[in-house]
Amino acid sequence: MRTLHNIDLKNNERGFTLHWENRLILSHSAEAPCLWIGAGEADIEMFRGNFSIKDRLNEKIALTDATVTQQSAGWAIRFTRGDAVSATLRVGVDAEGRLELKLNNDATRHNRIWLRLAAQPEDHIYGCGEQFSYFDLRGKPFPLWTSEQGVGRNKQTFVTWQADCKENAGGDYYWTFFPQPTFVSTQKYYCHVDNSCYMNFDFSAPDFHELAFWEDNATLRFDGAETYVDLLEKLTDLLGRQPELPDWVYDGVTLGIQGGTEVCQQKLDVMRKGGVKVNGIWAQDWSGIRMTSFGKRVMWNWKWNRELYPQLDARIQQWKEEGVQFLSYINPYVASDKDLCEEAAKRGYLTKDADGKDYHVEFGEFYAGVIDLTNPEAYGWYKEVIKQNLIELGCGGWMADFGEYLPTDTFLHNGVSAEIMHNAWPALWAKCNYEALEETGKLGEILFFMRAGYTGSQKHSVMMWAGDQNVDWSLDDGPASVIPAALSLAMTGHGLHHSDIGGYTTLFGMKRSKELLLRWCDFSAFTPMMRTHEGNRPGDNWQFDGDAETIAHFARMTTVFTTLKPYIKAAVAQNAKTGLPVMRPLFLHYEDDARAYTLKYQYLFGRDLLVAPVHEEGRTDWTLYLPQDSWVNAWTGETCRGGEVTVDAPLGKPPVFYRQHSEWADLFSTLRHI
Amino acid sequence: MRTLHNIDLKNNERGFTLHWENRLILSHSAEAPCLWIGAGEADIEMFRGNFSIKDRLNEKIALTDATVTQQSAGWAIRFTRGDAVSATLRVGVDAEGRLELKLNNDATRHNRIWLRLAAQPEDHIYGCGEQFSYFDLRGKPFPLWTSEQGVGRNKQTFVTWQADCKENAGGDYYWTFFPQPTFVSTQKYYCHVDNSCYMNFDFSAPDFHELAFWEDNATLRFDGAETYVDLLEKLTDLLGRQPELPDWVYDGVTLGIQGGTEVCQQKLDVMRKGGVKVNGIWAQDWSGIRMTSFGKRVMWNWKWNRELYPQLDARIQQWKEEGVQFLSYINPYVASDKDLCEEAAKRGYLTKDADGKDYHVEFGEFYAGVIDLTNPEAYGWYKEVIKQNLIELGCGGWMADFGEYLPTDTFLHNGVSAEIMHNAWPALWAKCNYEALEETGKLGEILFFMRAGYTGSQKHSVMMWAGDQNVDWSLDDGPASVIPAALSLAMTGHGLHHSDIGGYTTLFGMKRSKELLLRWCDFSAFTPMMRTHEGNRPGDNWQFDGDAETIAHFARMTTVFTTLKPYIKAAVAQNAKTGLPVMRPLFLHYEDDARAYTLKYQYLFGRDLLVAPVHEEGRTDWTLYLPQDSWVNAWTGETCRGGEVTVDAPLGKPPVFYRQHSEWADLFSTLRHI
Repeated sequence: MRTLHNIDLKNNERGFTLHWENRLILSHSAEAPCLWIGAGEADIEMFRGNFSIKDRLNEKIALTDATVTQQSAGWAIRFTRGDAVSATLRVGVDAEGRLELKLNNDATRHNRIWLRLAAQPEDHIYGCGEQFSYFDLRGKPFPLWTSEQGVGRNKQTFVTWQADCKENAGGDYYWTFFPQPTFVSTQKYYCHVDNSCYMNFDFSAPDFHELAFWEDNATLRFDGAETYVDLLEKLTDLLGRQPELPDWVYDGVTLGIQGGTEVCQQKLDVMRKGGVKVNGIWAQDWSGIRMTSFGKRVMWNWKWNRELYPQLDARIQQWKEEGVQFLSYINPYVASDKDLCEEAAKRGYLTKDADGKDYHVEFGEFYAGVIDLTNPEAYGWYKEVIKQNLIELGCGGWMADFGEYLPTDTFLHNGVSAEIMHNAWPALWAKCNYEALEETGKLGEILFFMRAGYTGSQKHSVMMWAGDQNVDWSLDDGPASVIPAALSLAMTGHGLHHSDIGGYTTLFGMKRSKELLLRWCDFSAFTPMMRTHEGNRPGDNWQFDGDAETIAHFARMTTVFTTLKPYIKAAVAQNAKTGLPVMRPLFLHYEDDARAYTLKYQYLFGRDLLVAPVHEEGRTDWTLYLPQDSWVNAWTGETCRGGEVTVDAPLGKPPVFYRQHSEWADLFSTLRHI
Repeated sequence: MRTLHNIDLKNNERGFTLHWENRLILSHSAEAPCLWIGAGEADIEMFRGNFSIKDRLNEKIALTDATVTQQSAGWAIRFTRGDAVSATLRVGVDAEGRLELKLNNDATRHNRIWLRLAAQPEDHIYGCGEQFSYFDLRGKPFPLWTSEQGVGRNKQTFVTWQADCKENAGGDYYWTFFPQPTFVSTQKYYCHVDNSCYMNFDFSAPDFHELAFWEDNATLRFDGAETYVDLLEKLTDLLGRQPELPDWVYDGVTLGIQGGTEVCQQKLDVMRKGGVKVNGIWAQDWSGIRMTSFGKRVMWNWKWNRELYPQLDARIQQWKEEGVQFLSYINPYVASDKDLCEEAAKRGYLTKDADGKDYHVEFGEFYAGVIDLTNPEAYGWYKEVIKQNLIELGCGGWMADFGEYLPTDTFLHNGVSAEIMHNAWPALWAKCNYEALEETGKLGEILFFMRAGYTGSQKHSVMMWAGDQNVDWSLDDGPASVIPAALSLAMTGHGLHHSDIGGYTTLFGMKRSKELLLRWCDFSAFTPMMRTHEGNRPGDNWQFDGDAETIAHFARMTTVFTTLKPYIKAAVAQNAKTGLPVMRPLFLHYEDDARAYTLKYQYLFGRDLLVAPVHEEGRTDWTLYLPQDSWVNAWTGETCRGGEVTVDAPLGKPPVFYRQHSEWADLFSTLRHI
């Protein structure tokens, strides 16, 4: 354990400064205070996972006066503004020796806090969960609230505007399924906040970061390291790490199929016959379908539907013997008109409304109850549903969807307000799935994957997927956006990430082209998992079995992927061991290269592969940046030393380089013969 | 003069209440205070008159404690929050016996004030200048800042989105050329604020109105009356009134024409030959044109261009003899590359930048200097420009355009920050034009019309026009929007309003249809002035001489308009005398009719005409509301008593009713024979 000597808290004539391991963390004076408290009334509306969030701000008061008192285990700083208002900051180290800042407003009606952390103009900031539009977060505020990610996510696109007009669904640069109050500074420290309230981390000022909390208290933890690799190890010491993936994940692509047992069989046969390496079938409609005016929806009653999937139990075993897993689907809602919901309601396991009645959320021509995961009995019961209905059936995995939709006006068993529990919900949902695996001994054998997350998902969500990209080439919501998403999540301590090959959202005239599907397939061969999705309007989209050329493309790229199996597996094992993510920003290994800090559309895949997916339509070449090293073009064998390079980028040969002196160089060199 | 007895200021156990003539104005307690002060840093960006305005709010502090002290001429209320911050409110009556509230923050660094006025849930609120989207302002905040009005003005329309993407030009419901911190409550009082800083009047709470001021002080004035008619008389006692219009205004339509002397002559001849009553030609390009990639722009060098308008001086006299005025154009900018600007610069009459150099504003491929109207010499010089270049030439009037574009980062002769002067600028610009008329004895003979305004424009802007509507049918930016604009301005003390017949803004694929032009012509016949505009892309728009039917339509409607001359003239005279506006909301005369308070797309034209313009495409009938009275359909002679009625509404017969027992009934009855 480190001592308090790492903390340097100095009074000066105007206030105080707090250094942690030689980094300036707080600087306070009456003229430039570091703390404000206040009061507001949250005005939060949700429609289908899209949130409008406003604060009716009643007060915001600078606490200009600070009195520092040394205590046995640190310091107490009493902040006041005359005799009107006050708050206390306790400075110390936690059991693991991290810097701990504990803020408490003296009056609980003061339910807002703004804390300014010292910053330098040249600092870069990364993390805050899964960020799709920005990787370096400097220069903008990032509200942290789990929600739908938005359709378009950029007010300058026609798709975003249409989605906004329809259901306030267009989103913006900071909308995400997985926000988290955790960031890494290029001063080589991380800052993590324990709370789950609505927060806004504003990195737009040159000399401070302003963290806003919609709560009367906040606990911040900091730790620093000599390298980013070490820093991520420390961060994942705090947050937890993902276990290794099941071995079958590396054996091919997981095909997203719907329509019943025979459709699955037929498509599987076609693909295998075409030389595609298939490791699984993912059928989200295993529990049946519901017809609505919008088309087919999954029936949210989490049990095998024998009409749509006859003989599924036997077929699962057969497929498993052939090396093909069957993956299904579940989410933390139960359709109000079906028997699982009836049972949950009877047992009192649904969240409540203000009148104490069961809360039912509207999902578009149907309603669903919310399983109250804060009720240990409800939580346990739902875990049993997973065990009995999914695991016992033989599922090799499932999509554990949703988690972002906890309404703020519902009432929970644990007595905590839904506004505070909202962000924590996805992690609770992850934990429920994780424990179902752990308690049945299936961790490392069965895989679930999630889009929503929060603090705790590092340990309990065994695989993330990037959610619902558009089936278009847009920067903020197409394949490009997956890369900053993976990298920001990596800097938040989650190192396993993949995406729907071809994207999902098929609305407002968007249709997935063949080129988009193939480019996405190329990209996915250099991520820890390959999985396709038909999209929400399958008939509008080019599919993996669209033509012979497409099938051949999947055959090629699954061969590339499976060829890399030992390399990927080692990278995943490293992630499980030390939290070093599988998809990495370049600066993790090229700290001295200033350019490496600004790249958001290329990444290192493990230590030795550099990947720059083509994310524009109609391209035949691609320009990327290589840090100083000895690099080999994976497809031509040409070598170069670094700098900006332009390469041919035909379909099936995404811009990928490997390190010449890698211990895996021989394996990589086989790629050009595929 | 009334005494202080009208003020009832009572301490109670928790705070105080202030009644004015039995109306609750302020209610204060520690739990529900009426005053907040704070500090912020304005973040204001302008691009071509479109503003992005944000507040970097540093503090907002409720002043919970209030100590009332009686003084010789009223009360001083000292508001504090502990010993931290304080402000003083002086309560008294002004020289005219109005309630006066003077707020002052004790520290000037506290440059923000929020004052909550007591309200009742059932109150309606009107005014705040020219409001295009809402007439009853209850339920929404209204930021008050003069700017472009926006193109589309509704985030749900495609036009707005396109304009937003292009130049942040789409606007929103509160964007206006003429904001004003003045409103009328249905508690039959007005409230007016003397300041010109950025303000936000938020009428969305049921039990208070929150007025926010970006300044360290504010002065509010209130007066009440028994009727709205009396209340407007009192309001215009305070603000001033417009003089009567020149007599020629009632003699026909003013034709907006561009292209030179002969084009004007030809179009005038065609229209007169077609039986159209023409009172003027308005040629905005009288000073020449500048070719840009966007097309022709007016040359901002305010003098007769002899190349484009040869023999204009003689022709003006000839036309005048024929009863046709020549109207020109001017605005408070001078093109940087022309001689007027050179002269202004040489004399030191332009506003400055931070380095003390002349400030030049970008207007799209050209720049212009800003005449510093706070410099008495510059102001006087520009008045001389108007007198010599426009009045001496013989102009019967002009468009006094702009006034909204004062950048907040320019520096002024009077030493007041441009942020504070920005809103006041249009009224200064109006005053400059007004005095040019007054000093030459031309008031009541020459007419200028403005789109921008602020407190003071009531006295100095002799005619408003509604600015730049789209050439489409949109509610927020088409002909419909002109009606709430006129009515809200009426409730702010300005009673003379008209609009471009056919609208102006021709962008993003919008083109003016024949139907739109004719419906707009119908509407304008029931306003105090008829004037056409070609629009910014004349070739895309249907014009007044588009075909014989259109010319005949203008012949008919100008005949309607000139037939009403004595009636309109009397209404204008009434407005000049008592501030009773020419276009009036129905509740001014039907106070007991609850429905009258909710109508924003119909109005009374004078006392005895009720007008409900057709503002939708393709309609053959129209439904409107008549308050209880004896009404006669102007075109059919049918009578009815009131309520909702549906009438035939062919082109040329806009839904208009007159009061059966009006002293003007005989005149009105002649309309159906036109």
